[in-house]
Amino acid sequence: MSAKQEEFAELDTPALLLDLDQVERNIDRYQRGAASAGLQLRPHAKAHKCSAVGRIQVERGAVGLCCAKLGEAEAMAAGGVRDLLVTTPVVGGLKIRRLVDLARSAKVAVVVDDESNIAELAQAAGSAGVQIDVLVEVDVGQARAGVAPGPRAAELATVIARSRGLRFRGLQGYQGKLQAVASFSDRDALVREAMGKLRLASDGVRAAGLDCTVATGGGTGSFPIDIRLGMLTELQPGSYVTMDTAYAKVALAGEGDEHPLGQPLTILASVISKTTAGKAIVDVGWKSASSDGGLPSVKNRSDLIFEFAGDEHGSIRSSAGELNLALGDRIELIPSHCDTTVNLYDRFAVHRSGRLEGFWTIEARGKSQ
Amino acid sequence: MSAKQEEFAELDTPALLLDLDQVERNIDRYQRGAASAGLQLRPHAKAHKCSAVGRIQVERGAVGLCCAKLGEAEAMAAGGVRDLLVTTPVVGGLKIRRLVDLARSAKVAVVVDDESNIAELAQAAGSAGVQIDVLVEVDVGQARAGVAPGPRAAELATVIARSRGLRFRGLQGYQGKLQAVASFSDRDALVREAMGKLRLASDGVRAAGLDCTVATGGGTGSFPIDIRLGMLTELQPGSYVTMDTAYAKVALAGEGDEHPLGQPLTILASVISKTTAGKAIVDVGWKSASSDGGLPSVKNRSDLIFEFAGDEHGSIRSSAGELNLALGDRIELIPSHCDTTVNLYDRFAVHRSGRLEGFWTIEARGKSQ
Repeated sequence: MSAKQEEFAELDTPALLLDLDQVERNIDRYQRGAASAGLQLRPHAKAHKCSAVGRIQVERGAVGLCCAKLGEAEAMAAGGVRDLLVTTPVVGGLKIRRLVDLARSAKVAVVVDDESNIAELAQAAGSAGVQIDVLVEVDVGQARAGVAPGPRAAELATVIARSRGLRFRGLQGYQGKLQAVASFSDRDALVREAMGKLRLASDGVRAAGLDCTVATGGGTGSFPIDIRLGMLTELQPGSYVTMDTAYAKVALAGEGDEHPLGQPLTILASVISKTTAGKAIVDVGWKSASSDGGLPSVKNRSDLIFEFAGDEHGSIRSSAGELNLALGDRIELIPSHCDTTVNLYDRFAVHRSGRLEGFWTIEARGKSQ
Repeated sequence: MSAKQEEFAELDTPALLLDLDQVERNIDRYQRGAASAGLQLRPHAKAHKCSAVGRIQVERGAVGLCCAKLGEAEAMAAGGVRDLLVTTPVVGGLKIRRLVDLARSAKVAVVVDDESNIAELAQAAGSAGVQIDVLVEVDVGQARAGVAPGPRAAELATVIARSRGLRFRGLQGYQGKLQAVASFSDRDALVREAMGKLRLASDGVRAAGLDCTVATGGGTGSFPIDIRLGMLTELQPGSYVTMDTAYAKVALAGEGDEHPLGQPLTILASVISKTTAGKAIVDVGWKSASSDGGLPSVKNRSDLIFEFAGDEHGSIRSSAGELNLALGDRIELIPSHCDTTVNLYDRFAVHRSGRLEGFWTIEARGKSQ
């Protein structure tokens, strides 16, 4: 048993571990990258869902946080982060009332792609006497939410600018599908194409006589491209802080350069059954490691292969044949997709230099509303 | 907008809905099936993770509940269910202490497949002066936990029977992979083969002079076979109460007969973006619907097709081409895999005859420890 295993012996499994030294290094790495390009960093809280991590990001230079859902923004505000952008449209009376409530105690911005939604937001903000910053979401190739990169962005921007209670701030253009393109040069070309669409939209907004102060978007994979390109004013990377096996495969630096980000997020798992020579069963399955991004890998043990074996079981075998794991032994898994794995846990067990420091609540876990 | 949509207008989305009329019908259907065969029903709490549902199952005849993990059993006991079988080995000092604590206030059984684990259990139960019922898990083809169906089961049973604090109760043989075999006749043949292995093990236990009182196993798909086969004394179906699209494809009755179980579990979703003619974006993605079992379907709208579009987005298109959905419209999705979808939510919104009755806490959500 390694020293690290002894340190964590008091932890029950499965547990979600977060290495704070590596978290801080990852945060600083991207903060420096953004600052050196004169850009603002607004990291995406959807990756960690934890206000303690968000506060570190803000303390180290981030302008605020992005949140995928209003519930996530409410959790981050309650945890002390006061400048928040909700990156998904907030639609319907129930949610808009919550958004207005949130705007009383935090600086809140939201994206829109629909005129009736703008009217509802304006009505609610105006009545409540609060101001909500609004950005028009432009579809730069994600084919999800957002207006086409033609005249529609300027039309909506004009409506927002005329609306009491709302302040037009700029555009969002997020190219999520491109983040995980493994080749740097392929990703570079695709990101440039997507950002060209956003420039078309921002040119249209400016031609309509409006300030387009903020152009927000980007992610962990496009970050090294975005900081050189100069289209976005504000960058939204999320996974860079926790990382996962999917992003570990994405070339973030030049060919042959060392990967600039560490892997602070792991799942501590225990062997709970060992009845055959070549296989061990651990206590991690679909309910404690997400599978939408593929299979977790085993940290520091490239000879071991994890496979899902049900909701609460995983199977471990060795590419070398023989498997030197016994009942009760522990291993660390690196999640394949950090966002959806974090969303399964109530807390991080945070550690530094191999010592457990405590637990940080993942307040926005399950806050999909 | 339908009457049902108006009824649920006070509900924010995504919300996990549970139709209590259908839940009760499903519970009664399997309870009657087990009772008519003279078998005990011990439904698996891993499917619903909610003590309020578990209490209905017990009130309507179940002998107790199965739990996949100790944390699930603790949550069910705290919710008033007092006869619990943990269907996964409980390994290591931290967990065994918790198991012993639980055994002070509830009737607890656990499965084992390892002699050192039995020794630890006996030591802890003996010292604490509690009794824990123990069953030997037999690998009947799942190739996960469990001893091979040879003499090993009788050897472990003999060790258990000699251990202070432990009571040998019988065997568990679970054939999870066979539950979803769509064809009834294929599944029938495979279940008979698996149960033949369990019979071999139980014959060995009896030949060693021990009572094999309980033979527990089975699931929603094998249920109609298990109640005819007479090998198991206790049945463990879980998904039958909530159901999902995967089990909807499994023939549970004879060819041509109506599916005997309803679909009480749905996800209420809202359209949050509608900028193109043929597509709508809803607020349900990987964080509010599990994907390990495939894609959710759209309830009562076989023309609509759901696809995941990220952590918090889903895309809806129509097989008919034109899509009559507007911003703010709501649809109900049927999860592809109930267990892992339930594990994403803190509560069910329970309804009856189209009227919301309240919220039931999913106490064991995330209780993978």
